[in-house]
Order: sequence, then structure tokens, then C-alpha cells
Amino acid sequence: MERCVRIIGIDPGLRATGWGVIETEGTRLRFVASGFIRPATKTDLAQRLYRLSCELAAVLDSHRPDEAAVEETFVNADPRSALKLGQARGICLAGPAALGCPVAEYAPNTIKKAVVGVGHADKRQVAAMVARLLPKAGTPANDEADALAIAICHASHRGSFQGCGQRVAV
Amino acid sequence: MERCVRIIGIDPGLRATGWGVIETEGTRLRFVASGFIRPATKTDLAQRLYRLSCELAAVLDSHRPDEAAVEETFVNADPRSALKLGQARGICLAGPAALGCPVAEYAPNTIKKAVVGVGHADKRQVAAMVARLLPKAGTPANDEADALAIAICHASHRGSFQGCGQRVAV
Repeated sequence: MERCVRIIGIDPGLRATGWGVIETEGTRLRFVASGFIRPATKTDLAQRLYRLSCELAAVLDSHRPDEAAVEETFVNADPRSALKLGQARGICLAGPAALGCPVAEYAPNTIKKAVVGVGHADKRQVAAMVARLLPKAGTPANDEADALAIAICHASHRGSFQGCGQRVAV
Repeated sequence: MERCVRIIGIDPGLRATGWGVIETEGTRLRFVASGFIRPATKTDLAQRLYRLSCELAAVLDSHRPDEAAVEETFVNADPRSALKLGQARGICLAGPAALGCPVAEYAPNTIKKAVVGVGHADKRQVAAMVARLLPKAGTPANDEADALAIAICHASHRGSFQGCGQRVAV
């Protein structure tokens, strides 16, 4: 019997960090929960990062994933944006590691390819395919859809899910 | 009577994060402790960031600073380096905030100016002045000297220490 594995996908951002938890068992995927963390913007940077780490720890504690996946950052941006994103990303990588969760990283194109079938899909296509693959997710917000796409990509890459376009029985 | 304030300076880095704790009381500075954290390089990024957060939490727990200061990152670097540094920096900002410590940020030139008197001082000049201002620090390693310089800069900017070149009675 295939083991059920619970995966959290995380899409890091200082303004908003999306998260999505799914379960994969054999070739099946099941939506568990998703949401986003938006630390108050009026506090200073250190406080925002701390709030992000607390809220992410609460999500991890509630959903106890076995494995985690985080989007690799597209570094063809300006260094100032890369630094800002890096700060939130550091928190999002360390959080699951603190629970002993292995943390995989995937490039944006790898995620799109796993979910939609092409590496240059746009956000709308990704969200539509996430909604098809995980019908119980309803219509997740952008940050949540991205996080669920990361989790689906990990399910595909760990070999428990066949990837692109597969209709899932829940 | 002036209140004694304990300050931790942190110089974030994924390879090595320097830290230095000082006390300032009126115009006096006193060295408390310094060191550096070098997470094992053979583990994956998430584990390294988690180890950094654990070791920094242990330092904060041992020395219980009232205030923290972290170097602002010089972003005129390539985005890949900025992202890497950002990840370590996120951990170093969130750590003291978790203790309720206010966290100040200073640009590298501001730190050099506060410690040496000129914004374009080199690393050797900064280390020499840190050794003069904090004789009990001995000859700290580079990462530690930088972290102590950040703490001295904060003491100067918070108004409890007059800055550059002042000889300190310990």
C-alpha cells in the first residue's frame, strides 16, 4: 500500500507568503488547506520577519507536513528586490527544517512545467490547473495557488504523482 | 544614573555570521562577548539556515541583549549574492525581534564612520579601532570585529556613546 505523504508548498514573500498543503498517495492528490501570511506592513522589517516566522510555525504545527517545497527565486531581478525576497525566503526555508522536514527547491519554470505542462505558462494557467487538480481548493488567491503549484510540483518530482494534466480522484 | 544597555551587533552571512555583545553606560563601552556562527556547509540550505537560527537563538539566550543592530546590506552586488545574503539576514533580523529586542540597521559606511571616523575605512582600520575601543575583546576574528563595530555604531547612534576615537575606560 502506498504511503500518504503530506506536502507543504511555500511561495515566500515579505508582503505576502502563500502556503498550500496537499496529500499525495500513489497517483492521487488531495487538497488539505491553503492560505497566506501577510505580516503587518507598519512594523519594522525585523518584526515583520519575526511575525512571518511565527505565523508559518503555526501553519506547520497545525498541518504537520512530512515534506516541504519552496520556489527557487528567479534572480534575474535587481539586487535590492533579491535581498528583500531573500530575507523572507530564509525564514520560509528554516521553518520547515526546524520540524525536521526535508525542504526541496524548484525553479519557477520547473513548477509551471510540472503543473501546466509548459515552462512558460502564465499565472492564470497555473491557477486554472491547480483548481482542476485540486477541486476542493475552490478558487485560491494568487499566492495560495502558487504555493499549491509548488506542492504539486514536489509530488510530481518525488515520483508519487505523474504530473501535468492528470485528473485527480479525491 | 545612566542605565547600562546591552547591545548585540550582528554581521549576517551564510558562510559565517559574526556577533558581538557590548554594554554601554553613559559614555562608557564594555566588551561582553563575541563569536561567529558557521553552519556546516555540507547540509542543504534550509538546514544551514535552521542551524544559524538555533545558534543565534542560543547566543541571544546566553547574553540577553536589550537592543540589536544589524549591518544594512550593500546591495550593489549581483542579485544571486544579494539573495544568499538576504536569506541569512532574514534569520538574523527575526532572531532578536523574537526576544522583543528593537533591531536597528546601519549602512556599512555609517558603521565605519562611527567607529573609525571615515566612511571609507578598510577592514584593518575597523578591526584596529574596535581593539582600541574594546581592549578586552583581544584580537577578534574579522567577522567578530565587524559585529562589534556594528554594536559600537549603535551605541554611538542611540546617543550613549560619543563615537569615533573615544578611548573607553573599562
